[in-house]
Amino acid sequence: MNQSPIGIFDSGIGGLTGVKAIQAALPFERIIYFGDTARVPYGPKSQVTIRKYASDDTAMLMRYQPKIIIVACNTVSALALDVVEKSCGNVPVTGVLKAGARLAAEGTRNNRIGVIGTQATVSSNAYGLAINQLNPDIEVISQACPLFVPLAEEGFIDHPATKLIAAQYLAEITKEGIDTLVLGCTHYPILRKVIEETVGPDIRIIDSAEAVAFRTRELLTQSGLLTSSMKASAPHLLVSDLPQKFSMLYQLFMDSEMPDVELVDV
Amino acid sequence: MNQSPIGIFDSGIGGLTGVKAIQAALPFERIIYFGDTARVPYGPKSQVTIRKYASDDTAMLMRYQPKIIIVACNTVSALALDVVEKSCGNVPVTGVLKAGARLAAEGTRNNRIGVIGTQATVSSNAYGLAINQLNPDIEVISQACPLFVPLAEEGFIDHPATKLIAAQYLAEITKEGIDTLVLGCTHYPILRKVIEETVGPDIRIIDSAEAVAFRTRELLTQSGLLTSSMKASAPHLLVSDLPQKFSMLYQLFMDSEMPDVELVDV
Repeated sequence: MNQSPIGIFDSGIGGLTGVKAIQAALPFERIIYFGDTARVPYGPKSQVTIRKYASDDTAMLMRYQPKIIIVACNTVSALALDVVEKSCGNVPVTGVLKAGARLAAEGTRNNRIGVIGTQATVSSNAYGLAINQLNPDIEVISQACPLFVPLAEEGFIDHPATKLIAAQYLAEITKEGIDTLVLGCTHYPILRKVIEETVGPDIRIIDSAEAVAFRTRELLTQSGLLTSSMKASAPHLLVSDLPQKFSMLYQLFMDSEMPDVELVDV
Repeated sequence: MNQSPIGIFDSGIGGLTGVKAIQAALPFERIIYFGDTARVPYGPKSQVTIRKYASDDTAMLMRYQPKIIIVACNTVSALALDVVEKSCGNVPVTGVLKAGARLAAEGTRNNRIGVIGTQATVSSNAYGLAINQLNPDIEVISQACPLFVPLAEEGFIDHPATKLIAAQYLAEITKEGIDTLVLGCTHYPILRKVIEETVGPDIRIIDSAEAVAFRTRELLTQSGLLTSSMKASAPHLLVSDLPQKFSMLYQLFMDSEMPDVELVDV
């Protein structure tokens, strides 16, 4: 069981920020990643559709008998974590949302936390609910930033248009006196520099991909499931579609050459 | 047969610019529209996946016995028009790509045409091929503008960031001495004003949604298939997912209140 892989899925390639964070936290674990690139994005879709996709994605990973399943997709974490839990028997499940919410709730000093994400994540108020479950005194202020994903995927990391859009999206939320800002979408770490510059040095950024990697290390350590291997390996990549830009995006997200990718049918 | 509807499909809501153009050109025709909102966007996906989706979309419309099928999706027009033709028997098919290409080829005076579209449309060079089939002397210069769709859907019609991005995307293409620019993506008419301002008054804009509406009127007139009805009706809308923003987007695209929408399974 200890030698089993860590399974991680996302609606597309965004979850690779999670893979990168896991590699940093747990360099010797085998990772199997499924990106539902044929049906990405989940964010703007309805809850019924998102829940069906979450079930498909879990089934895909279960074929590889993972020792833990990580939901790298904020939308699924927000709207369908129970579907994932129901679809994978006794395998533990952790998601970016709960992990990010916990790190933020533990870190805030003035009990004012900002959350940015896709429209679906923000509308669901899932971060607010998760944070308030941990500490009902925390006020959570959210803002949808729908253009951040396409800007990240276009590689407009440091573009004046990205700065303008970030300034507009983040204007209200930074006026609210928050001391912590959760990047509630896996793509956003790609734009972390612009976001940090926009909100200024007094607001601590919580990257939910990093948060879920810490949480995974914690869960595997507690349950004695850490690998005994001392050899790092490239992640095993499954995608439901192989878009033209995939290799460029892989490099953008992972900062390394793309390994072989397996095309699968959902 | 004359009273049968016009069938039109797109990967999502973008094809509504086609519906609007058809309503303007053929106000008394019944229109049935299918938007594959559960699997949008097609643009960045692979050809195999796009061709499968094209076949599904055609089958969906064929249930309603349309007298003509309009492919409002540039990606399908570029990569899978033959799939649509094969899936619909004797029903005539027309697509935004051929219609836009024809209007541009007939309109250019200096034989230099620019085409903007999604990455998939541009990479396929389908507009170039279609234009050169009509006139091999025309030079076609293309530019992918991946952020235009999300900017349009965010309603950033007149935003400074949109102007910056348009200026960057269109800088090279306008230096090429083109006299005609094809909007090779159904969303782009939403940003027509910014695009026109960016390229200047000497370049004629060809809207492929308008072009396919003209072509449809021509085809129905030639084959005696125009309706005898004198009553306008709202389009019959089918979608594979009902996203939260749908009604806002419908209004943005159609400039009218959304009629009832039917949710269908693909």
